[in-house]
Amino acid sequence: MMKLYYAPHTCALAAHIALIDAGANYETQKLDFSQQEQTKSEFLAINPKGRVPALLCDQGLLSESPAILSYIAQTHPRANLAPLDDPYKFAKVQEFNAYLASTLHVAHAHGKRAERWADDPQAKAELHRKMPQVVLESFLLVEKSMFKGPYVWGEHYTICDPYLFTFAQWLEADSVDPDMVPKIRDHRHMMLQRQNVQTAIKAQLQSN
Amino acid sequence: MMKLYYAPHTCALAAHIALIDAGANYETQKLDFSQQEQTKSEFLAINPKGRVPALLCDQGLLSESPAILSYIAQTHPRANLAPLDDPYKFAKVQEFNAYLASTLHVAHAHGKRAERWADDPQAKAELHRKMPQVVLESFLLVEKSMFKGPYVWGEHYTICDPYLFTFAQWLEADSVDPDMVPKIRDHRHMMLQRQNVQTAIKAQLQSN
Repeated sequence: MMKLYYAPHTCALAAHIALIDAGANYETQKLDFSQQEQTKSEFLAINPKGRVPALLCDQGLLSESPAILSYIAQTHPRANLAPLDDPYKFAKVQEFNAYLASTLHVAHAHGKRAERWADDPQAKAELHRKMPQVVLESFLLVEKSMFKGPYVWGEHYTICDPYLFTFAQWLEADSVDPDMVPKIRDHRHMMLQRQNVQTAIKAQLQSN
Repeated sequence: MMKLYYAPHTCALAAHIALIDAGANYETQKLDFSQQEQTKSEFLAINPKGRVPALLCDQGLLSESPAILSYIAQTHPRANLAPLDDPYKFAKVQEFNAYLASTLHVAHAHGKRAERWADDPQAKAELHRKMPQVVLESFLLVEKSMFKGPYVWGEHYTICDPYLFTFAQWLEADSVDPDMVPKIRDHRHMMLQRQNVQTAIKAQLQSN
């Protein structure tokens, strides 16, 4: 059985949804970020990065959302969560998730995690100030150049959908008007109707 | 035939090396970053991100180094550039490259590309000041928790090796002493002895 380490309101929601989508055999372990549990020695012994999501598999630990999502898709082919038989289409799925991880999520992190890149309070305030603009630009590139609709890659749901949805849930908190990215807004609404998405969100908010 | 869009001294070197390693049928197109060619309409029509590497394949464009590297490995299985038959080991390769893309490369970018996240000159100066520390911390995590040696995953060369090498080439420019990460320093030295690495570096520095 796999074990997903997560914290509520983090990008670990995407992996959680994908595990349910896959029909995977898994359990979860919640970390309390308010108590900085992710930086304590017990968790660092599991994941030296001190981050979630982290997925404990039979063969060892796996981190980084794009890798976890692709692993879930590859090990549960019957769930059809990625175009596994077409290397180009599979690479496009990786490309999409890589962009969310290394550009969109990074843009978002300059709001609440500015201390990663700056110590000076005024510089951190400047990163926080510019963050909504950078996040919006990143979402606009997704909206205009990548998103097919109704799902990310068209009619077929993939591991890109829960990952995009997870970040779209943070639009208002990032001071970005969802109406600026109407396709992503509508995708978020559609995703919220899915039973698996609701199940993952409810499970993450329960104590455990 | 594939076409690799690149600029010298960028992370596109990794894809270039991997194409040679794979024995791929490809050509290259150099962009002149000093002339901002990557932001001009001709290139934006090819890659709306305005970034390199970008790999034009028969089926369309591919961007994001981790996706490009995995695509090269998957489409050239005889080159044995990734553990394609083991989903967990393949995911570990993705995890490694995802970390370089979304943490190590991002840390580096706060030096010369601070304008992505800040407008204020003092804030940009602060990002530049802290950059070497953040880059070092990221390399140290690779050195201590990920790198097996002599190659990233042990005795077997993978698509993680040219990607790590590419960033290790920037250590001095990022004001990080290579002796702080001796395994990565030695890996860089070993990589520089490889004919394919020398071929890619020379090709990128030629006019085209």
